[in-house]
Amino acid sequence: MCAGPAAELGVTLSVLAEEGDGSAAQVVRSAPVGDYTDPATVLDFARHCDVVTFDHEHVPAPVLSALAQAGVPLHPSPEALVFAQDKLAMRTRLTALGIPCPRWAAVATAAEAAAFGDSVGWPVIAKVPTGGYDGKGVLVASAPEEVAEWLARGPVLLEELVAFRRELAVLIARSPSGQAAAWPVVETVQENGICVEVHAPAKDLSPDLAADATAAGLRIAGELGVTGVLAVEIFETADGFVVNELAMRPHNSGHWSMDGAITGQFEQHLRAVLDLPLGDPRPRCGVTVMANVLGGQYDSLYPAYKHVMARDPGLRVHMYGKGVRPGRKIGHVNVVSESYADAHERARHAADYLQGVVTE
Amino acid sequence: MCAGPAAELGVTLSVLAEEGDGSAAQVVRSAPVGDYTDPATVLDFARHCDVVTFDHEHVPAPVLSALAQAGVPLHPSPEALVFAQDKLAMRTRLTALGIPCPRWAAVATAAEAAAFGDSVGWPVIAKVPTGGYDGKGVLVASAPEEVAEWLARGPVLLEELVAFRRELAVLIARSPSGQAAAWPVVETVQENGICVEVHAPAKDLSPDLAADATAAGLRIAGELGVTGVLAVEIFETADGFVVNELAMRPHNSGHWSMDGAITGQFEQHLRAVLDLPLGDPRPRCGVTVMANVLGGQYDSLYPAYKHVMARDPGLRVHMYGKGVRPGRKIGHVNVVSESYADAHERARHAADYLQGVVTE
Repeated sequence: MCAGPAAELGVTLSVLAEEGDGSAAQVVRSAPVGDYTDPATVLDFARHCDVVTFDHEHVPAPVLSALAQAGVPLHPSPEALVFAQDKLAMRTRLTALGIPCPRWAAVATAAEAAAFGDSVGWPVIAKVPTGGYDGKGVLVASAPEEVAEWLARGPVLLEELVAFRRELAVLIARSPSGQAAAWPVVETVQENGICVEVHAPAKDLSPDLAADATAAGLRIAGELGVTGVLAVEIFETADGFVVNELAMRPHNSGHWSMDGAITGQFEQHLRAVLDLPLGDPRPRCGVTVMANVLGGQYDSLYPAYKHVMARDPGLRVHMYGKGVRPGRKIGHVNVVSESYADAHERARHAADYLQGVVTE
Repeated sequence: MCAGPAAELGVTLSVLAEEGDGSAAQVVRSAPVGDYTDPATVLDFARHCDVVTFDHEHVPAPVLSALAQAGVPLHPSPEALVFAQDKLAMRTRLTALGIPCPRWAAVATAAEAAAFGDSVGWPVIAKVPTGGYDGKGVLVASAPEEVAEWLARGPVLLEELVAFRRELAVLIARSPSGQAAAWPVVETVQENGICVEVHAPAKDLSPDLAADATAAGLRIAGELGVTGVLAVEIFETADGFVVNELAMRPHNSGHWSMDGAITGQFEQHLRAVLDLPLGDPRPRCGVTVMANVLGGQYDSLYPAYKHVMARDPGLRVHMYGKGVRPGRKIGHVNVVSESYADAHERARHAADYLQGVVTE
């Protein structure tokens, strides 16, 4: 999704692709295939790049340090990225900064887990500190023995189960020279740990909460030295908010901005990591609802794709060129409208139709 | 400029490039270099394409007929494209359809030229029927001898000099199955035969004229069997309009739509030639001013580019990856705003700054 903005900006992209027919390799001219976990491969790839950035956080530390030692400009830097890779590091740092977090503990034994659960109340949220994604590596534990298997492999992050009203996200872009820009706070709707919709801006959000959450996002970006896009996922609670997760890359909660904001997140990420002046993150007009298209009933989406385009010419459908697997994010739909109800009905219908959940 | 929309639509592009470092070749993964005037080269290229379309009208007839004979789906078809290639064919056909045109004549001799000029009044507009572009192949003739050189090479199209108020353009997209969609009528501002600005929609345009011009555009697209984007350049006169030129491809007068319309012209062209349902061509909100960036003072645009982006984060700057030559179109700037005055001031400043016309 960086390919279009890169072309318009006059920026040449090169992607280290996992497979020759991967999504990015389909649309980027320079897309050598290689193993991103192998330092030599990544170093060789990076030799012809002015700046290296990431589309996920799972790049191993030895690769990052090899690049940094070779003097390759990395955005975000390994020092910042660690807070998106390691949830324990993140909790420790955010707590030190006074950013609102759920009550949490790093536990190494069942006894420590029991003590934490007894103090905040069961059930608790258990997280493997590194490597999780879309709900993987996270569980709701009602007793210490439910995290025993994880504990056998290392420390586990436990958090209180937050009684939240809804989930929000603050997206920030920050450049190496320190310029930062914040998109409006959005609402994210999750099902089974996977984001299914984003409503931008979040409906009926208190201006004070919007300001506080945005200020927290900007402060986290600055204090952690983030460069590029930072997504701060937060829980709205009865008396404010707590931070749930951090991601340091263009994020699903920002896909609405491709059609709904003056500057979309993929363009802004490129501008940020290249230290170009940042673009205006405000909505173009109206409100946007983004609905993820998950792999569903159809092996070939083409007939359904034509149907939804014909039914609603105002849809903005983005497909990723991925094979269909049930539950896999294979595209998304944006609808910009004057009303949330209209945008939601249209985006929801299109995503449901593409998934085979509705057939008319 | 099709590359971004193609990626989002999940459409694989392949470009027959004039040079390995040409604009399209920089951003399209499959971009073999070849001579588009050689039938064998183009046939070989077309073998792996589902649909072939064009980014200019100067593809020779032998190439088009070789492709058609080989059964390659061409959009627009050679039968339609001829009306964008040959201004005499266009004038003959539009006149037969009753579409308003300037008074015109095909002249083969100086005597015929003299007779036409004497009847409509001098000066007249003289046009070489084929091969013109950006004012080349067009001149204002005050006497028959001024077209003598062109007459020696073949028939010349003469047209009355229209006392127009301003220039407008109607852009239409039409698909093989006959669906058509019209963007709002825009005003185009020309200097020295080159389009420098587009104001979308045209300011203070009479609703009747807008409806009549749009109807004429849709009728031309249908009657000529155009597939893809059709640009109809028209003169607004005291009592209506006359058609000036036709182009059958995404057109400079439609660049505003990349940021200002729900569906931009490059996406719509792809949807049309692939016979996908067309998208909504209406403005997203407000008005858009597009200013072309012509090659100017700077060999390297990078410092100026950073300046204009920093000065105005709401600018949409599109650069084409072309070398800078004075007067060459190397990019454009779109500004979407609530007011023409604001959009114009900002787009004009950015283009002027990038050209070195202003330095602050």
